[in-house]
Amino acid sequence: MTRFGSSEPVPGECPADVGCPPVTPSQLKIPTPVVDPATVPAQLVDLAKLSDSELSAGVTRLIFTDSDMAGRAYVRSLMERAGLVVREDAMGNIFGRWVGSQPDLPAVGSGSHIDAIPNSGAYDGTLGVLGPIEAIRALRRAGFKPKRSIEVLMFTSEEPTRFGISCVGSRAMAGKLDPKHLDSLADILVPDGGTFRQAALKAGYANTTADTEDMVKQCSLGEYGTYYDSFLELHIEQGPDLEDEELSIGIVTAIAAPAAIRCAFTGDGGHAGGQVMSRRNDALLAAATLTIAVEKLALDTGSNDTVATVGVLRVGPGAINSVPRTAEMEIDVRDVVGARRDEVVSKIISYGEQIAESRNVRWSHDIVNSDPPETCAPKVVSAVEAAAKRLNLGHKRMVSRAYHDSLFMAEVAPTGMLFIPCHEGYSHRPDEFASAEDIKNGIEALALALASLSLA
Amino acid sequence: MTRFGSSEPVPGECPADVGCPPVTPSQLKIPTPVVDPATVPAQLVDLAKLSDSELSAGVTRLIFTDSDMAGRAYVRSLMERAGLVVREDAMGNIFGRWVGSQPDLPAVGSGSHIDAIPNSGAYDGTLGVLGPIEAIRALRRAGFKPKRSIEVLMFTSEEPTRFGISCVGSRAMAGKLDPKHLDSLADILVPDGGTFRQAALKAGYANTTADTEDMVKQCSLGEYGTYYDSFLELHIEQGPDLEDEELSIGIVTAIAAPAAIRCAFTGDGGHAGGQVMSRRNDALLAAATLTIAVEKLALDTGSNDTVATVGVLRVGPGAINSVPRTAEMEIDVRDVVGARRDEVVSKIISYGEQIAESRNVRWSHDIVNSDPPETCAPKVVSAVEAAAKRLNLGHKRMVSRAYHDSLFMAEVAPTGMLFIPCHEGYSHRPDEFASAEDIKNGIEALALALASLSLA
Repeated sequence: MTRFGSSEPVPGECPADVGCPPVTPSQLKIPTPVVDPATVPAQLVDLAKLSDSELSAGVTRLIFTDSDMAGRAYVRSLMERAGLVVREDAMGNIFGRWVGSQPDLPAVGSGSHIDAIPNSGAYDGTLGVLGPIEAIRALRRAGFKPKRSIEVLMFTSEEPTRFGISCVGSRAMAGKLDPKHLDSLADILVPDGGTFRQAALKAGYANTTADTEDMVKQCSLGEYGTYYDSFLELHIEQGPDLEDEELSIGIVTAIAAPAAIRCAFTGDGGHAGGQVMSRRNDALLAAATLTIAVEKLALDTGSNDTVATVGVLRVGPGAINSVPRTAEMEIDVRDVVGARRDEVVSKIISYGEQIAESRNVRWSHDIVNSDPPETCAPKVVSAVEAAAKRLNLGHKRMVSRAYHDSLFMAEVAPTGMLFIPCHEGYSHRPDEFASAEDIKNGIEALALALASLSLA
Repeated sequence: MTRFGSSEPVPGECPADVGCPPVTPSQLKIPTPVVDPATVPAQLVDLAKLSDSELSAGVTRLIFTDSDMAGRAYVRSLMERAGLVVREDAMGNIFGRWVGSQPDLPAVGSGSHIDAIPNSGAYDGTLGVLGPIEAIRALRRAGFKPKRSIEVLMFTSEEPTRFGISCVGSRAMAGKLDPKHLDSLADILVPDGGTFRQAALKAGYANTTADTEDMVKQCSLGEYGTYYDSFLELHIEQGPDLEDEELSIGIVTAIAAPAAIRCAFTGDGGHAGGQVMSRRNDALLAAATLTIAVEKLALDTGSNDTVATVGVLRVGPGAINSVPRTAEMEIDVRDVVGARRDEVVSKIISYGEQIAESRNVRWSHDIVNSDPPETCAPKVVSAVEAAAKRLNLGHKRMVSRAYHDSLFMAEVAPTGMLFIPCHEGYSHRPDEFASAEDIKNGIEALALALASLSLA
């Protein structure tokens, strides 16, 4: 990315429209951290090898599988080599703490996830776990001493691939995870694989907890601002804007509101030869009709910020010579405007009902989650903005249409996000890519922002 | 089913519009076989237990899996208990022969399959394997002696579930299986499961063959009429007509022409949050559009005999938060009029191309099979019709919209089919059902028809 030609690269400068705290003299004394451009890209390649993907370039790392357990061991080893104090909680969230000079103060957190949907890329989430470890090493090398502890997190199950619900670890930290709902979600990956808790127990977690309620409770980080004073997540943009505009740093001001719908059409099936067309109630035809409607309903809002996706469609029995009896769908709807998102969700559900009636199939649906949008905390936004300016990096404020553990960490402490460009905006695919230079810039900006937040 | 009140139940009567051979004195002396109504239903229940289905009522028995191997052992044991001479060929087709008084004459064949698509029923195919074994036992009990040998067959892989191609065993017998095509078909069930030949080798078959070509060649039954003099398959109707009209026996005069298309749309995928709607090329949206078109193209012919089904639709990567990158489809098209079927197939392919272009996704397709319709042999049709009349069973001539191994056996010898009613026409689903009385009637008619054909 090209450098930003700012005329006033003043460290800690406060942007006009954010009520950020004044820059203190101690912040101005933060030494400039220097990150080796080769280190983290090489670690990302190492981590990508711990995968179940059949594509050589793709990464598949579903929560609590062997590849995920190997990835966790890798993250712990990097944390230990960086001199961090490592702990894991009952749901497998991993914490690595650089203890500050005032260890009793609420800490500064930074983290993301390493789980990966099938055949996806090497950068989504992983950069936000390996990045802050390297940021701490760079700050240490530069001679910086934190006041508040700085803590790196690896969240359990940001991706919803295995149990249908995203951000399981950060929801629990925020006290926003209903144990009964978690217990009601079946394992999508392994037939009869049981619940999240059963999978966690198999992976060696949760064994000091009495039940799911106790497990979830143990992971809560308590009242707002008591465990963390601030939280900042580094991530690839997962969109094309920074690359298109040749900027190095995206400063996230709001995170779009996600909702997830699971629904199913059920007909009576039949033999694809023996059953005439007029006697059929084909579940897939109902699902195909709804799939096309989902796209239309998103386009109909007229806003680029509304997106709706049928990402999962499973057909049963799934044989060429059998009329589909079941069609299960998972639908993702997001918007930065919560009310507009909710309207699309309710139109999808109402249209699903209409389709079921007209095609004489049964229909069931469940809104798995419907979370509000979040505005990022001014003090975190300004810390990132100041860091980008000090490093003379091209930057802009932007919205995150994708959502992240930060959406839930915003319920735990003042929260923000820092984006770096990714090639063509590609994400969740094998050719997801961020350059070594962009990674270096992002980690240096992260390091400076974490350092300044640790002194606040 | 109610009995048919025929005024002229003359054994061996020749229907006006079929050029059947004259009834010989020996045929008129065939003793009436009597079948116990409980035996075969109980065997069908036993066989249904050999299943991988997770539904208690459903049957899943894919070719060369453990449940299929157990089913094969069960069939061989029934053949042996019935005093048949049992052999298996290089592809796992099983033959049980009741040796006739003139063992060098071409034999009379009767058989079907025991493989079952996921979560299907207990009667499709299985009745046509267990039925003729019981028919032979009933003929033996009645004191009948065959002139031509009567042979029961269990065909390998009638269902296309595992390798995408149906009637593998009977295609090979008819010399209609291209070894290169067979080798090109991947195992749909087991990732990296290899080819049909590799699966057959694992199951203990094909080990005396040099390669796939040799394996397929060894299973050929040679010139038309040299191995079998006639072939007759007993099957449930898989449609509602016999039940609706309260008839016991359907005499099949023609078998609809099936075609199978495999196709795939491939887009670029992306993150379901990060990628705005206007930048997507969603493979599932293309597939959903084609799915709806397939139904319309079948309905547009205006004939009840045209059926088209998207039975398989697989979405990749298949995660709720990922824009579908791939959508693989398997489409089944059938008609009793071959040319009309071919027109629907070519419209589907042409429409698929248009959709791919308009949605900016890549598209590939393969016509896996496209077989001609078959007319049943007059001598077999008349043998079944005479048997139904002699037993005073309500019957009618009909078309089979479903297809069967008989479609390919018609290339081996004069061939026909005998249908019995099934509940509501249900098939390929767990609640597939045929009553003990209809099964008894069907097997008795089969026994009489096989006996008369063996004397011809």
